[in-house]
Amino acid sequence: MAKRADNSSAEPVLRGRVWVDLGGGAVLTEAAADLLEQIEATGSLSEAARRLRFSYRRAWVLLDAANRRWPWALVSTAIGGRKGGGATLTPAGRAALSAYRDLQIQLETMLDYATPAFRRAVRSERPAPRR
Amino acid sequence: MAKRADNSSAEPVLRGRVWVDLGGGAVLTEAAADLLEQIEATGSLSEAARRLRFSYRRAWVLLDAANRRWPWALVSTAIGGRKGGGATLTPAGRAALSAYRDLQIQLETMLDYATPAFRRAVRSERPAPRR
Repeated sequence: MAKRADNSSAEPVLRGRVWVDLGGGAVLTEAAADLLEQIEATGSLSEAARRLRFSYRRAWVLLDAANRRWPWALVSTAIGGRKGGGATLTPAGRAALSAYRDLQIQLETMLDYATPAFRRAVRSERPAPRR
Repeated sequence: MAKRADNSSAEPVLRGRVWVDLGGGAVLTEAAADLLEQIEATGSLSEAARRLRFSYRRAWVLLDAANRRWPWALVSTAIGGRKGGGATLTPAGRAALSAYRDLQIQLETMLDYATPAFRRAVRSERPAPRR
C-alpha cells in the first residue's frame, strides 16, 4: 500500500445525497432538481441545460424520465407561439422541486448534527503517538 | 416526451447515501465500509472482495485510497506466516466502520421521518382529476 498522507490533523467531513425512487427507479435526483430549477428560471430546456453544462441530450433524457415516472407531469412544454415555445414547471413540478429542496436541507441538518459525534468516535481509537 | 407511466397511485420512496470526505476526496463510502466489514469477517482482502463481487483490483484500490487518506491505518496486513498472511481491521478501522454504520442509521431515520411530509407536499399540487 502506498504511503499514508498526513491527515492526522484533518477532520473528516460528512457528505450525503438524497433522491426519490418511484416505480422502481430514481426519478428525482439532484441533477433532475437542478434541471427543474433552471427550467423555472429560464423558461427553456435548452437554456437550462446550457446553464448546468449538461448536453441537451442529457437534459432531455433526465427530464423525460422524471416526467414519465412522476405521477403527474412536472414540466409542460409549448411548441412555437410568440416566444418560440418554451418549458415551464407545472404546479406539481414546483411542489416536487420544493419538497426535494426541503429534503436536502434536512439531510444537511442531519449531517451537521452528526458531525461532532462522528469525529469523536473516529478519534476515540487513534493510535498512541510514537515516542 | 414519451407517455407517462401510470404511477398516480405509487408513492415516492426517499433514498439516500452518506460518505466521508477527508483531504479533499471521498474516503469512507458505502463500498469502502462494506469492504472493511468483510475484511473484519473474513480476515482476507481477496475473500472480502469475492463476497462483495468486487474485482480484487477494485477492492485493493478502494482500500488503498481509504487507508492512505484516513489519519490512521484502517487495516493492517500481514504477509506470509502460518495462516498465509491476511488482513485485519485496526482499532481505528473498527471505530471508523462503526461510526459510518451509525451515520447510515441516522440517514435512514431522517428519511423515514421526512417521508410523510414529502408525500403530502407532492400530492398537495396534484392536478384535479379529469371529468
